[in-house]
Amino acid sequence: MYRDKTCGELRIEDCGKEVTLSGWVQRTRKMGGMTFVDIRDRYGITQVVFNNEVNEELCESANKLGREFVIQVKGTVAERSSKNNNIPTGEIEIIASALTILNKSDVPPFTIEDNTDGGDDLRMKYRYLDLRRPAVRSNIELRHKMAFEIRRYLDSENFLEIETPILVKSTPEGARDFIVPSRMNPGEFYALPQSPQLFKQLLMVSGFDRYFQIAKCFRDEDLRADRQPEFTQIDCEMSYVEQDDVIMMFEGLVKHIFKYVKGIEFNDKFQRITWHDAMKYYGSDKPDMRFDMKFVELTDLVKGKGFAVMDDAELTVGICAKGCAGYTRKQTDELTDFVKRPQIGAKGLVWVKIDEQGGIKSSVGKFFTDEQIKEWADRMGAENGDLLLIMSGDAMKTRKMLCELRLEMGNRMGLRDKNVFAPLWVVDFPLFEWDEETQRYYAMHHPFTSPNPEDIPLLTTDPGKVRATAYDIVVNGTELGGGSIRIHDSELQDQMFEILGFTKEKAQEQFGFLMSAFRYGAPPHGGLALGFDRFVSILAGLDSIRDVIAFPKNNSGRDVMNESPSPIDPAQIDELNLAITLPQE
Amino acid sequence: MYRDKTCGELRIEDCGKEVTLSGWVQRTRKMGGMTFVDIRDRYGITQVVFNNEVNEELCESANKLGREFVIQVKGTVAERSSKNNNIPTGEIEIIASALTILNKSDVPPFTIEDNTDGGDDLRMKYRYLDLRRPAVRSNIELRHKMAFEIRRYLDSENFLEIETPILVKSTPEGARDFIVPSRMNPGEFYALPQSPQLFKQLLMVSGFDRYFQIAKCFRDEDLRADRQPEFTQIDCEMSYVEQDDVIMMFEGLVKHIFKYVKGIEFNDKFQRITWHDAMKYYGSDKPDMRFDMKFVELTDLVKGKGFAVMDDAELTVGICAKGCAGYTRKQTDELTDFVKRPQIGAKGLVWVKIDEQGGIKSSVGKFFTDEQIKEWADRMGAENGDLLLIMSGDAMKTRKMLCELRLEMGNRMGLRDKNVFAPLWVVDFPLFEWDEETQRYYAMHHPFTSPNPEDIPLLTTDPGKVRATAYDIVVNGTELGGGSIRIHDSELQDQMFEILGFTKEKAQEQFGFLMSAFRYGAPPHGGLALGFDRFVSILAGLDSIRDVIAFPKNNSGRDVMNESPSPIDPAQIDELNLAITLPQE
Repeated sequence: MYRDKTCGELRIEDCGKEVTLSGWVQRTRKMGGMTFVDIRDRYGITQVVFNNEVNEELCESANKLGREFVIQVKGTVAERSSKNNNIPTGEIEIIASALTILNKSDVPPFTIEDNTDGGDDLRMKYRYLDLRRPAVRSNIELRHKMAFEIRRYLDSENFLEIETPILVKSTPEGARDFIVPSRMNPGEFYALPQSPQLFKQLLMVSGFDRYFQIAKCFRDEDLRADRQPEFTQIDCEMSYVEQDDVIMMFEGLVKHIFKYVKGIEFNDKFQRITWHDAMKYYGSDKPDMRFDMKFVELTDLVKGKGFAVMDDAELTVGICAKGCAGYTRKQTDELTDFVKRPQIGAKGLVWVKIDEQGGIKSSVGKFFTDEQIKEWADRMGAENGDLLLIMSGDAMKTRKMLCELRLEMGNRMGLRDKNVFAPLWVVDFPLFEWDEETQRYYAMHHPFTSPNPEDIPLLTTDPGKVRATAYDIVVNGTELGGGSIRIHDSELQDQMFEILGFTKEKAQEQFGFLMSAFRYGAPPHGGLALGFDRFVSILAGLDSIRDVIAFPKNNSGRDVMNESPSPIDPAQIDELNLAITLPQE
Repeated sequence: MYRDKTCGELRIEDCGKEVTLSGWVQRTRKMGGMTFVDIRDRYGITQVVFNNEVNEELCESANKLGREFVIQVKGTVAERSSKNNNIPTGEIEIIASALTILNKSDVPPFTIEDNTDGGDDLRMKYRYLDLRRPAVRSNIELRHKMAFEIRRYLDSENFLEIETPILVKSTPEGARDFIVPSRMNPGEFYALPQSPQLFKQLLMVSGFDRYFQIAKCFRDEDLRADRQPEFTQIDCEMSYVEQDDVIMMFEGLVKHIFKYVKGIEFNDKFQRITWHDAMKYYGSDKPDMRFDMKFVELTDLVKGKGFAVMDDAELTVGICAKGCAGYTRKQTDELTDFVKRPQIGAKGLVWVKIDEQGGIKSSVGKFFTDEQIKEWADRMGAENGDLLLIMSGDAMKTRKMLCELRLEMGNRMGLRDKNVFAPLWVVDFPLFEWDEETQRYYAMHHPFTSPNPEDIPLLTTDPGKVRATAYDIVVNGTELGGGSIRIHDSELQDQMFEILGFTKEKAQEQFGFLMSAFRYGAPPHGGLALGFDRFVSILAGLDSIRDVIAFPKNNSGRDVMNESPSPIDPAQIDELNLAITLPQE
C-alpha cells in the first residue's frame, strides 16, 4: 500500500502521528522558507509543509512539483497555525519528512477545481480529468450510493435482481433498435434492448414474483438535449398485484432513497392526480408541484363580452401570481414576449393587476368592466396585490402554453427551489392516443398495458375514453418513471392488438414468444421503470443527466474522449457478411 | 393484492387463520370425497383441501384444475392429519372456502418438477417454464444473493460502483468484438466491450481509487461448451496498491461470500502457489486443491536403466494414489485407456502397486528391480497399499497429461466433493508467452500488466523469464478470476509495447486515449476481475454456467426461446448504410 491514510481523514486528534499519504498535487505555494503543497485524493485535501531550513533538499524537490503530479508523502501530523475552516482537514498539516514522485503530469488542459476554466467540449475530451473535480466526483458518488440503497430496499422487500440479456431479438417495428450482426449466424442480427419489458414479463410467467434490475437500455434515437443512446433504468415487475400495490411499493423506494441518501423524510403519502386533472389544472402530465398556481378556467365568464380573442376561443384559462401586482410594464411585456417565443407560440397574453387597494388595471380594460374582471379574480381566489395571467385558444394548446408560463412564473418567484422535492403520482392515463396522421390508435404506454377494468366495455364503443391502469411518478416537474398493470388475459390482449391495428400474424411475429408464454399460466402482474440517470440528476440538483454518467456521449452519440463510434477494419465487416454502402463522394 | 400470504410461509402456529394464497397448480389428487391441490409459488408449496361434502360446487371446480393453472384460494389454515416433513409447510393445509381461476394453462411441454422429463433443448425453448422448477429458480436466487453480498462487502470497503459504457470504441485488433453500426455516424461502428479494462484504468487516473462494477462483457468467440457471448464480471480496480493489497482485499470478498451466502467460514489465509510450482506439482495453472496427490519427479531415478520410454523422456513424473494398490487389472487398464484418449494423447501409463505387505507389482517389472522401484516409492512418500501412476515424455505435455489423470483419480477416490471448497491464489505468472508460429511474444494477461520489479532488468536480456505482477484465484480447479498490477510509468509501458511488437503508431491507434490519460498523473494501480457466472456456478455446485443465467444462449450463440439472432427488415439495414453480402445459393 502506498498510503496508510487518505487525504480526507486526518483531524486535530491525529497530531503527532507518523503518516503516509498519496495523491495528486492540487497546488503548491512558496512562502519565505516554507513550501506548502495541497495533496488531493477522492477523500479530500491535506496540506503538506516543507521547511527549507530543516531539509533543503526535500524542500527543493517540493518546489519542483507541478499541478497533478502524483506524489507520496511521509510526515508527522501537526496543528496548523492558521486554520482553514472550509475543509475537514483544515486544522492540521503534515510536516513532511519524505517525498516520492510516483508519476509526473503534463500541465492539464484546464484547472481541476470546481470553478474550472475548461469549456464543455474540452472537459468532455478529457473526461478523465473532469472526473477529478470534486463537483463531478460527488455526482458519481451519489449515483453509487443511490444504486446501493435501491438494492438494499428492494432486497429487503424480497425482490430478486435478475440480469436479462443485452443481445436480444430485434423487433421488426423497432426501427430504432441498435443492431448487432452475428458472425456465427450470417445475415442475422441481435438487437440491444430498449428495455427489458418482454423479459420481465416472462420472469413473471416464470414465477419470480418480485423482479428488479438496474438495467442498461439502448435507443438509437436522434438525441435531444438530454438523451443518451445508452441509459440506465431501475426496472421492476411484481406478480399478484394491483395498481395500488405497485404504487405503494415504489413510493416506499423513493422515500427510502430520499431518507438514506438525502436525509429527507416524507411522512405523508405522495399526492396523486389523474392525468385528466393534471392536464386541466397544470397543462402537463408532469406538473411541478413545488408550487400551486393552479389553472382556473374562465371561459364562461369571458365569452360574449365583445372581445373577439376570448369569444372565439375554446378555452380561456389563467393563473394567479401571488403578490406580483407590482410587476412593471417591462416585466409584463417580458412575459408576453416569453409566451410569444416560437417554442411556445402564443399570440398574446392578458394580464390583470389587482393593487394593494383592490384597484384593477389590465391589458383588456377596453373590453371588460372592473366588475367583470372582479368576477374573474374571485374565481381565481385572487387577493389584493396579485397578478392574473390569462390565455385563450384551443384547449389543449392553450393549457400547454400556460403550463410554460406557470413554470416561468415559478422560476421568477423563486418557487422552484432545487432543495425542495415534490413527488407526485399521475394516474388514469388514457389507454390510447389517436394519431390524426395515420388515423389510428397507438398505445400510450405499450400494448400490454391493462385497461382500467371499469372501462373495458368502452373498448368496443369509445376506445379513446378508456383509462389505462398506468401511472407515472413525477418529481419537480420531471417524469421520474412510470409503469402499468399488464394484461394477463390472452383474449383481452387479442382485443388490444386488434384496436391497435396489429394483425394476428404481426402480433405473433413481434411478440410471439411472449404470447406463447402467456398460454402457460401468466399471473396477474404489473410494474414500473424509473429512469436512474434522471433520478440521480434530480437528487444532485442538476438539469442534465450527462453529469451523473461517468462516460457520457454527446448529442451526436459520440464519445469524444475515445472517438467512438469509429471506422473499423474492412476485414471485420467482411467476416460479418456485410458491406458499407456509403455514397462515394 | 391477490394474496396475503405466500405458499411458503404458513406453519402450524398459523392454524385457524383466514388466508388468501395465489400461485400455480403443482398437482391435484382426488381421494374419496376430498380433492387436494398443491399450490406453488416462488416461496414454496402449500396443500389446499376441497371437501365434496362441505361444498360440492367448489370441489367440482377444483377437480377441473389443470397443471400450472394460476389460482387464488381463500380458506382457513388447519393442521394436517398426515404431515409431510419434506416441506416447511408440511404440517398444515388450507381448508378452501373460495377458488378463483386467475388464468388457465395449456398442458406444459414437460413436468415442472426438479426431476423433469424435459430434454435440454425443450427446456431451453421454454426457458420461462424451466425457470419455474425449484432447482433452476434456486440458482437465480443464489445469484441475486451473491450479487447483493458482493456489493455489500465492496461498499463497506469504500468501493464505488461505476457504470462504464456498453457502446465503446472498436479496437482494430479486436477482431472478436461484437460491433454496432451507428446510424447517426454512417460508416462508423461502436463495439461492445470485452471488459471494462480501459475504462477502469481511466477511472484510476480520475482518482476514483476503489472502483467496481458487476459488468456485462461480450465476446464474439466460437463458443466452447461453457462460454456465453455475453457474460458477467465482477470488475475491480484500486489505486495506490501493491499485489498483496489487491489479493487481501478480494480474498476478503470471497470469504465474505462464502460466509454470508454458504455459511462457510475460512479462518486461514488462502493458500498461494507460484505459477511455476503449480505447473511443476499439479501440471496446471489452476490446480484443484481439494486433494493433495502432488506430482513427484523421478527423472533422475529412472534414466539409464534401459527402459527406452523413460531414457528418452525429458521428464518422468508420478502421483501416489493412497490406498489404491488393490486396483484390479481392469481398473489400471481403464486408467491407461483414459490417458490414451485423444483428448489427452498419452502413449501409455506406468503403474506400481505396493501391497499391504510392501510387495511391489508394476507394469515395468521387466526394466526395474524392486529396489529401484522402492526408491521411487520412497521419494513419492508411498506407503503400503498405495498405487503409483507414472508418466514420461516432453516436460510440459507430460505434466498436463498427468494433471488430467490426477483429476480423474480425484474423482474415482471421491476427493472432489462439491461441498468442499479449496481456494488458491496462483502468483508469479510469466509476463510473456512465446508463440512459435508467429515467432513473437504475447502478453500472457494484457499489455498493461506490470512486470515484477525485480525482473525488470530481464526485460532486455531474457523476456521469457520475466515474472508478471499477476495473480489468479482458483477454486476447486476452476479459474474464478485474476488480475494484475498495471504499469503506470509510460517509459516502462513503451518498453512493453516494443517487446510485444507494437509500433508507436499501432499502440497510439489502439490505446491512444489511455496513453494520453497516463500523461496527466496516473497513480500506481491494479485490480482484478472475477467471473460472476462462474462464481455462482461454483457455489451452486454446477459444472456449467448456463444454469445460473436466467436467459442463456446456446453453443451457437442463439436464444432458442425468442429465436434470436434473426433476420431484420432490409429498410433498417439500408438506413445503416449497410448491405448483406451473403453468398447467393
